Amino acid sequence: MRDELFIRGEVPMTKSEVRSISISKLELSKSSVLYDVGAGTGSVSIEAALSMAEGTAYAIEKKNEAIELIYKNIEKFSTSNVIVTEGEAPEVLLNLPVPTHAFIGGTSGNMDSVLDLLLNKNPDIRIVINVIALESLQDVMDWLKKKQIEAEIVHVQISKAKTAGRYHMMMGNNPVYVVSFGGNT
Amino acid sequence: MRDELFIRGEVPMTKSEVRSISISKLELSKSSVLYDVGAGTGSVSIEAALSMAEGTAYAIEKKNEAIELIYKNIEKFSTSNVIVTEGEAPEVLLNLPVPTHAFIGGTSGNMDSVLDLLLNKNPDIRIVINVIALESLQDVMDWLKKKQIEAEIVHVQISKAKTAGRYHMMMGNNPVYVVSFGGNT
Amino acid sequence: MRDELFIRGEVPMTKSEVRSISISKLELSKSSVLYDVGAGTGSVSIEAALSMAEGTAYAIEKKNEAIELIYKNIEKFSTSNVIVTEGEAPEVLLNLPVPTHAFIGGTSGNMDSVLDLLLNKNPDIRIVINVIALESLQDVMDWLKKKQIEAEIVHVQISKAKTAGRYHMMMGNNPVYVVSFGGNT
Amino acid sequence: MRDELFIRGEVPMTKSEVRSISISKLELSKSSVLYDVGAGTGSVSIEAALSMAEGTAYAIEKKNEAIELIYKNIEKFSTSNVIVTEGEAPEVLLNLPVPTHAFIGGTSGNMDSVLDLLLNKNPDIRIVINVIALESLQDVMDWLKKKQIEAEIVHVQISKAKTAGRYHMMMGNNPVYVVSFGGNT
Repeated sequence: MRDELFIRGEVPMTKSEVRSISISKLELSKSSVLYDVGAGTGSVSIEAALSMAEGTAYAIEKKNEAIELIYKNIEKFSTSNVIVTEGEAPEVLLNLPVPTHAFIGGTSGNMDSVLDLLLNKNPDIRIVINVIALESLQDVMDWLKKKQIEAEIVHVQISKAKTAGRYHMMMGNNPVYVVSFGGNT
Repeated sequence: MRDELFIRGEVPMTKSEVRSISISKLELSKSSVLYDVGAGTGSVSIEAALSMAEGTAYAIEKKNEAIELIYKNIEKFSTSNVIVTEGEAPEVLLNLPVPTHAFIGGTSGNMDSVLDLLLNKNPDIRIVINVIALESLQDVMDWLKKKQIEAEIVHVQISKAKTAGRYHMMMGNNPVYVVSFGGNT
Repeated sequence: MRDELFIRGEVPMTKSEVRSISISKLELSKSSVLYDVGAGTGSVSIEAALSMAEGTAYAIEKKNEAIELIYKNIEKFSTSNVIVTEGEAPEVLLNLPVPTHAFIGGTSGNMDSVLDLLLNKNPDIRIVINVIALESLQDVMDWLKKKQIEAEIVHVQISKAKTAGRYHMMMGNNPVYVVSFGGNT
Repeated sequence: MRDELFIRGEVPMTKSEVRSISISKLELSKSSVLYDVGAGTGSVSIEAALSMAEGTAYAIEKKNEAIELIYKNIEKFSTSNVIVTEGEAPEVLLNLPVPTHAFIGGTSGNMDSVLDLLLNKNPDIRIVINVIALESLQDVMDWLKKKQIEAEIVHVQISKAKTAGRYHMMMGNNPVYVVSFGGNT
């Protein structure tokens, strides 16, 4: 789905191409239960929810500004299967239904405890993480090593043409690491 | 969908990440009619077909080796809505039903006539093109300019970790240009 | 040389990494005569000049703002072998000494006539071109094809860490095509 | 310098573009003393040595096959200021003259002790490191954090055109992290 379709404000949003890759790597089924941790504008929750007729996406977010945007986007896309969950992970995840999938787009430094909880809730969970900071990548890799989990790690670098007169100039996006693991396939 | 899921042989295949981006940019609906021109292993046709309950994907391919692989992959995924069409574009497209969408992954140098025919068949068609050679990008851009169509042009550069002992080495894939335009959104 | 070393103003500057690659691909000798066409801040001229004890770099530039910056940078680095040449290429190149090397960082759309003149002045000239727009890349490739010259074409994508608290976030630069050909090696 | 100029065998070599960037970031002066740790084919030592009229490059390498190649390349380029030092870092570095600069292209997992020794020998040393594995990047970043040194971290992704008939296909190289710090500028 195009980025322009979402109401965005100033909240950072996973860009279209990285969102497509991440949702594809989630390998959702029709009735998955997805946690979208650090949901931002809700773009991942909504795009995922639209593809799951009987599934549910929990959009977990702590910032008020972002939460408002998620509600606006849910309304815009009339998605009835996105549930906004206000609060901070991992605490706020405790009382939610058992997840089959999780997308982590932002965790404010408590990556370990979030990943621990997700794995506790469902040892077969499939998790996809978007990482921008090198330190967050370290945190994820350290956790994976401790748990002896082998993940797929992909570095995505997108540039996009901007029109300037008769010219198309390629503008570089910021690169994103997409880490994926788990699931029972 | 993971690349390993498809039966591949020696036939070149659009890699998982680029396929996810391309299918997302197609913006298929439940009942789309998709031409997959230069279908290769059929991976785009099959992944697209699985997302269209009532739609049809035409996998157009001229090479025997590839055609066999498409049939094998159709069988493997039990997709009943992929129709293999043997022959060379644009000629072979003439008698197919009007398309709503087209993916072009390979055209052996007749990009112009293929694009002309697609636009003739449906002026509102949405087209996504994967381009590897700089000359093919030129061909597409020249055609777009002649038709005064403004397209989105994205350069996708993926690298993927390969495990070597305790190390993860990032291995660079070949970059792909993804060009998208048209549709009535 | 670090970008911060140059006085820059608002004038676009070839970034450090691309400048290093481009100057290396010029394969200058101690006594080369270099044209720097579209010199901008003069960073390429100055870095090249510092490596050529007996050579000369002609910094060709038409914009007043940029010309002033070149003079300031020459003063800052005390480079006596950079000669500022005000005016537009190719005309302004006619009366300059025969070049052994040329770097083209910007040509405002007259790529063909600039390349024609350079090759006329010295059929053995070595040329390195930085291209950002896809149309400029087309122009260069069309000219190379017409002249039956085989060039090296390299796509350079740099991202650089920005510190944010305890985090290093990788920020993507805009990609640059570096095209190199000629010379008698 | 072009990769083809060096005698290579099967030994991995820093590619031309990354070598240009790395040597540029070393900021060598005419009389620098450079350690090239994990010298491989000697390409960095030789290219650096050619730019230092009165400086010396120590090519440190433990593998016999690589050492032979370094000697061959020294002969080919007639560089009298490259000194081959056989053995493993950090031990082999102990008796060498105090370095002003170091390039680390490979350390077989003892990154910490090598960096410690370099900094001990000269607190003002300027160091440039090429890293391919994510774990090596972690090692370097952990060490930098411990020492409270702020470094520049750059991710370099190069792709290069390969001619196939009338086409230029862009082929992706493996990405490299270039980490630079220190020096008294």
